[in-house]
Amino acid sequence: MAAAPNSAATAGEGDAFGRRIIALAHHLAQWSDTPDGLTCTYLTPAHRAVAAELRALMRAAGMTAEIDVVGNVVGRYAAADPNAKALIVGSHYDTVLNAGSYDGRLGILAGLVAVEDLHRRGKKLPFHLDVIGFAEEEGVRFSAHYIGSSAIAGRFDMRVLERRDAAGHSVADVIHKSGFDPEAIPSLARRPQDLLGYLEVHIEQGPVLLQEGLPLGVVTSIAGTIRYAVSITGQVGHAGTVPMALRRDAAATAAEIVLYVERRCAAAPTLVGTVGRLSVPGGAINVIPGRCELSLDIRAADDTTRDAAVADVLAEIDRIARRRKVTTDVKEIQRGPAAPCSPALQAKFAAALQRAGIAPRHLPSGAGHDAVSFSGVTDIGMLFVRCGNGGISHSPLETIAAADADVAVRVLLDVLEHVATGDNAG
Amino acid sequence: MAAAPNSAATAGEGDAFGRRIIALAHHLAQWSDTPDGLTCTYLTPAHRAVAAELRALMRAAGMTAEIDVVGNVVGRYAAADPNAKALIVGSHYDTVLNAGSYDGRLGILAGLVAVEDLHRRGKKLPFHLDVIGFAEEEGVRFSAHYIGSSAIAGRFDMRVLERRDAAGHSVADVIHKSGFDPEAIPSLARRPQDLLGYLEVHIEQGPVLLQEGLPLGVVTSIAGTIRYAVSITGQVGHAGTVPMALRRDAAATAAEIVLYVERRCAAAPTLVGTVGRLSVPGGAINVIPGRCELSLDIRAADDTTRDAAVADVLAEIDRIARRRKVTTDVKEIQRGPAAPCSPALQAKFAAALQRAGIAPRHLPSGAGHDAVSFSGVTDIGMLFVRCGNGGISHSPLETIAAADADVAVRVLLDVLEHVATGDNAG
Repeated sequence: MAAAPNSAATAGEGDAFGRRIIALAHHLAQWSDTPDGLTCTYLTPAHRAVAAELRALMRAAGMTAEIDVVGNVVGRYAAADPNAKALIVGSHYDTVLNAGSYDGRLGILAGLVAVEDLHRRGKKLPFHLDVIGFAEEEGVRFSAHYIGSSAIAGRFDMRVLERRDAAGHSVADVIHKSGFDPEAIPSLARRPQDLLGYLEVHIEQGPVLLQEGLPLGVVTSIAGTIRYAVSITGQVGHAGTVPMALRRDAAATAAEIVLYVERRCAAAPTLVGTVGRLSVPGGAINVIPGRCELSLDIRAADDTTRDAAVADVLAEIDRIARRRKVTTDVKEIQRGPAAPCSPALQAKFAAALQRAGIAPRHLPSGAGHDAVSFSGVTDIGMLFVRCGNGGISHSPLETIAAADADVAVRVLLDVLEHVATGDNAG
Repeated sequence: MAAAPNSAATAGEGDAFGRRIIALAHHLAQWSDTPDGLTCTYLTPAHRAVAAELRALMRAAGMTAEIDVVGNVVGRYAAADPNAKALIVGSHYDTVLNAGSYDGRLGILAGLVAVEDLHRRGKKLPFHLDVIGFAEEEGVRFSAHYIGSSAIAGRFDMRVLERRDAAGHSVADVIHKSGFDPEAIPSLARRPQDLLGYLEVHIEQGPVLLQEGLPLGVVTSIAGTIRYAVSITGQVGHAGTVPMALRRDAAATAAEIVLYVERRCAAAPTLVGTVGRLSVPGGAINVIPGRCELSLDIRAADDTTRDAAVADVLAEIDRIARRRKVTTDVKEIQRGPAAPCSPALQAKFAAALQRAGIAPRHLPSGAGHDAVSFSGVTDIGMLFVRCGNGGISHSPLETIAAADADVAVRVLLDVLEHVATGDNAG
């Protein structure tokens, strides 16, 4: 097990902040649930090891730091005034299966490296700066998202404690086994009046900044997602003996739906629609599909745009099914509203970008982030970092440039110095 | 284990032939590889039990009967002249997974019940009537079709002996274990000059006769099948973060292919095209599919029609892939020519149908049958029996009416009395 790269970076030394982030991300990626690649899911041994390491890094950076009862690593770079409000800079340290090293962790490390710099410079802020590594965002192990951030935001759903992983362990079980008391989760909730805001630096996970040649972007809104599970029942039949006109083919029905989703969701700028799961259960080469299952994920920067698309898609599924004489079962499995970012925080990020010589590109986030948990609780603001390699994320191919991570930390530091004021100027 | 229904049916007693066939099919369905339903695959204990039972039934019907080295049950109702030619009436007794009781077995039982009637009446034929239960047609266990009929037709491919089932047993192993010598398979081949022809009664496995209100139909040709495995590689991406215009979605590509196959194959009467397998391997609700796999099965009563459709489909796959900037891997995995039925035997079946008061409907077979093995070796003729329940086959819902099975036996007996002559008249 490699020791943590132990010299904090110094601003101005080329892209020292960025290189430190990349070194630390590689360092944290050594702990995985799997022998190869990076998979770090809620409260596994690898996950607990990463938490302990983050806590050590935060303490070394001049913060007080503890692991809370859901597994969040909460560091505080305290203001002189103990009654000051807190600004949270956070993201998550759990990962998807076979993940990249930056999704989530970049946001924690950006906060950490910024504090390392403040601490080295002896610079205090007029608010508590809480850098939080949220324990769970991806929902991999328990199909429950935002376990960490929802607890801090005071929105933890206690029913989630009963969710079970593939091995039958409940969330409550694994929290207990980690030495924590699930009953204490509600006490983690921050009071809105104690918060100054919530900031999150995150890899874009898409190709927009890359295509436009920009290292950073200001997030306008986090899209609200609606998800459906669609099951189509037609009629199985022998591939050789049923004339085309007499078929009720579930896969052909699904194909029409897939293409309609694609066409409809191309019709508005921030709208996206995806059929990520598609299968003919038990399909055979010589059997007309009698069943087909697909998933539907539709998002947009605003709920009106999204809901109009969803209504059209559901109506079209109905029309296609009636024409093809098949039945469909359409189950809504998730619905979240869009989370708009605070205009004031967007303006502060934009001003800091301009001071860094970067044209401020505003863009929505199609992916959900921990910031969503704080929407409506406190002002949220997000900074996207360019995703290399064509914009690939949720993959070992995910990458960022050290220079981009570096300027992200510098922009974050700039915003931290301006956030407590109404002032966007430098 | 129930004893076989042991009284042979007598013609003229209502639908006694039909009722006996249905009783015997139920009787044989008691032996299955699975505790529930009917699955009977090559040389399993259930399969061997069915073979032994068929041999016993044939012997009781006045035939000599043996199980040959590939597991075929070969019964002979001998002519007076030992040098007479042989007419084969056959089909298979293996089944698909979770099968119906008639696919294959109906053809063996129709021959058996016809011989029971001839024997009871003391009626000899001017040729040897060989009723054969072929051991293997469906290809379930070893992905090798027509093991039984190809051996008798002299077309057994000895490389098939090396094929292995899911447990790793080879065809040669299981033949050995059944007490047979695979090296003796070539000796099963009949000489074309010893054969008068090959007849097969089979459930239609489709809805055509049912829709037209006809109990029986005369098969014109057995469609030749071309099959492909198509694998599409696009680019995975986050469902929320990649704008629609920048996607290279493998599932949407597949959807276009599915709908083109459907449209193109609706454009000619006997042509059918099926995508029976369709899946996004490891698909996730929030990930744009980077891979999609599908199967393609295209058939027609004549090879010209089929090949024209295949050429169009392959060209369209190419066009779709280029437009969507994805790559495709298209592997041909099967290609069989159409097997036309003998015009003379079609005429004999049609004349017998007319004598039975049934309008002679000629139709192609989209499904492959053991008759294909004999195409080019001897004249082949096939009689289809109406498939109940909407035309469903390869399913426990597969059914036939006793009256339809009954008239099938009577038409078969009529043809047997006319087959040795050039005469179609009664």
